[in-house]
Amino acid sequence: MDFEAFFKSELGGLHEEGRYRVFADLERQQGQFPRATRYTEAGSHDVTVWCSNDYLGMGQNPSVIAAMKEAIDHCGAGAGGTRNISGTNHYHVLLEQELADLHGKESALIFTSGYISNWATLGTLGQKIPGLIIFSDALNHASMIEGIRYGRCEKVIWKHNDLKDLEAKLAAADPKAPKLIAFESVYSMDGDIAPIKEICDLADRFGAMTYLDEVHAVGMYGPRGGGVAEREGLMDRLTIIEGTLGKAFGVMGGYIAASNALCDFIRSFASGFIFTTALPPSLAAGAIASIRHLKSSQLERFAHQERVRRLRSMLDASGIPHMPNPSHIVPVMVGDAAKCKWISDILLDNFNIYVQPINYPTVPKKTERLRITPTPLHSDADLEHLVGALHQLWSRCALARAVA
Amino acid sequence: MDFEAFFKSELGGLHEEGRYRVFADLERQQGQFPRATRYTEAGSHDVTVWCSNDYLGMGQNPSVIAAMKEAIDHCGAGAGGTRNISGTNHYHVLLEQELADLHGKESALIFTSGYISNWATLGTLGQKIPGLIIFSDALNHASMIEGIRYGRCEKVIWKHNDLKDLEAKLAAADPKAPKLIAFESVYSMDGDIAPIKEICDLADRFGAMTYLDEVHAVGMYGPRGGGVAEREGLMDRLTIIEGTLGKAFGVMGGYIAASNALCDFIRSFASGFIFTTALPPSLAAGAIASIRHLKSSQLERFAHQERVRRLRSMLDASGIPHMPNPSHIVPVMVGDAAKCKWISDILLDNFNIYVQPINYPTVPKKTERLRITPTPLHSDADLEHLVGALHQLWSRCALARAVA
Ligand SMILES: Cc1ncc(COP(=O)(O)O)c(C=O)c1O
Ligand SMILES: Cc1ncc(COP(=O)(O)O)c(C=O)c1O
Repeated sequence: MDFEAFFKSELGGLHEEGRYRVFADLERQQGQFPRATRYTEAGSHDVTVWCSNDYLGMGQNPSVIAAMKEAIDHCGAGAGGTRNISGTNHYHVLLEQELADLHGKESALIFTSGYISNWATLGTLGQKIPGLIIFSDALNHASMIEGIRYGRCEKVIWKHNDLKDLEAKLAAADPKAPKLIAFESVYSMDGDIAPIKEICDLADRFGAMTYLDEVHAVGMYGPRGGGVAEREGLMDRLTIIEGTLGKAFGVMGGYIAASNALCDFIRSFASGFIFTTALPPSLAAGAIASIRHLKSSQLERFAHQERVRRLRSMLDASGIPHMPNPSHIVPVMVGDAAKCKWISDILLDNFNIYVQPINYPTVPKKTERLRITPTPLHSDADLEHLVGALHQLWSRCALARAVA
Repeated sequence: MDFEAFFKSELGGLHEEGRYRVFADLERQQGQFPRATRYTEAGSHDVTVWCSNDYLGMGQNPSVIAAMKEAIDHCGAGAGGTRNISGTNHYHVLLEQELADLHGKESALIFTSGYISNWATLGTLGQKIPGLIIFSDALNHASMIEGIRYGRCEKVIWKHNDLKDLEAKLAAADPKAPKLIAFESVYSMDGDIAPIKEICDLADRFGAMTYLDEVHAVGMYGPRGGGVAEREGLMDRLTIIEGTLGKAFGVMGGYIAASNALCDFIRSFASGFIFTTALPPSLAAGAIASIRHLKSSQLERFAHQERVRRLRSMLDASGIPHMPNPSHIVPVMVGDAAKCKWISDILLDNFNIYVQPINYPTVPKKTERLRITPTPLHSDADLEHLVGALHQLWSRCALARAVA
């Protein structure tokens, strides 16, 4: 087989469908977020980033920066081993305590990413609990889907956020089979939020464990940033809360929070936890600082929500269509892959505004969009510049305007 | 089902088999490596680490430390997004160039860990190349095994480092099927090295791609630290070289180096690459500094090899049995899980020497061992202290001595 020709022809297919991805080469500017330097063949210039998942700008919070640099001075660059073989650092222990406390659980366990925490935890539960059936929301993240496949257990997919469908599927399953319901709080592409309480009620009725991915909610919701489940007083009803240190907390890494026995079980059996170098001390230290800051400060959360409301009302006033939802994610709908990329390119090249186009397979075809994430650090002028540019583009090209 | 009871009983099984793992809670001391502070319930005390995979002490190299802190000052804590959605940082681009150059390949692609680079690359090739057969060395690392399973393609396991067996199995397979041979250079637990040239010869004869994990070799072998394949002038014969930034390079992250088309293919299709927050700029910057340093400096490699020879001859002089091998890994064989843990506990508690016992499933039962990894930063006094302590323990308990 001519392998090179095969790879090239597969890539050609992506080009033809208009979904070949070109990464924007950026250099974030600490202290100037959401500003970044963009590198191109022609040189470099400043842009305003409108699609970061550093939702609160914690990536440049002075306490986070200081904690990371201090940990580097103190402990050096990497962890130097897997958690079991010399790689457990005291910062990891403290971070796990901080996370357990954040979610009101007995324990927490950190992973190298949120992706790995979903994959390793769901996979290990699926493989080890005899007869487990995992009930998975149809729009769950790729990392959960891969984890469930990895578990090689029975999988039942229920319609997105549809309690009736979940109930029917739970009722149809063997009453004696162990069950787990896996879902997210804030879904990252549409920004809608799951009915957590009602799902937990169903779980209780059918004796199922609950697994909640709060990746797009931790740090941003709840009085201490514990996520949507904290805001709604439901943390104790979830068997496992999963989160990331790489989005609102501004660093990198993932985790689960659950009972002692469950965390110890995953710690002891999950390949993706065991056989990999641990997080650098500096990342753990930065995450601790970020979590602690957001446990006590409401400022970032309030400012974030205010910016989101403000952007929405400005878009409404300009007739730019965006998907309504109860979260901080503002999907501006385009509905066509080529147009979406075209708008994004013009915003970047002519307006120095960077919003990555979101195409299939991340979202279904015909729902291509600009996924805009305002942060507390986007100023009024930034908002006006963005909405002004969108307004021009919507006037220039035949894009459906929202009915005012 | 009583889930808590299930988790507890599974953990009970580990306790009974003597393979429940307790992590040593350490605080590395930048500037004092291999010294670390160990935290216990009773307080904290200093230990010498003898089982780190920061093989060359690059985790405290001043250029690495400075690069990381500078990147934090410059760009902040995290990448703020996935590679596609605002998370590509200029440091990532430079790091990928540095790695491609290191291995003499057209391109490189970085992942959040070596684990993920193996899992995502092998899995994606297995899933996407119709009819692919992966020929996997029997002792391949967990991350490769999981990746091959994930690929859901045909898998043929050949006897560890056994060319005859590999040849027979290649010859027995459908001549028209696309093939890939997956193996490691330095195997981390026994420290033996694969016959890379002969494997490449077989690959050529049977039209197979080659996938070489150099995780325990990059930075340490070859005139520029390109690994065993560089040392032996074989880099161009490998289709894919995989490595980690978390061991000899002292930071964290993983990568592959290969052709433009292959890297672009994995970049475009691998879920584990696409759907996860990118490495923080500081880790990429630290890795660049580390790779650059080890490309030009031979000091660390020479000192490392000298320390390894020295330790081996001291162990020989004391009659402490260790597995002979051509690498930097010194497995001191114990052959019993309980004894292995007992020795490790005494070394830690009475001698302030930390060597993690390596038990099943990391190594086969009856081959339990202390896996010792001397670094350029272990002094003569450190070596004498270690060998003296082992000598005392070997005298005290009925451990087989090597025939002098
Ligand atoms: C819902 C969801 N879960 C998990 C992840 C993975 O988290 P991480 O980026 O920390 O790997 C993501 C995005 O990256 C996500 O959107
Ligand atoms: C042979 C081998 N490959 C891959 C890995 C994974 O690399 P990382 O620690 O960067 O995840 C390891 C160890 O951790 C390993 O021993």
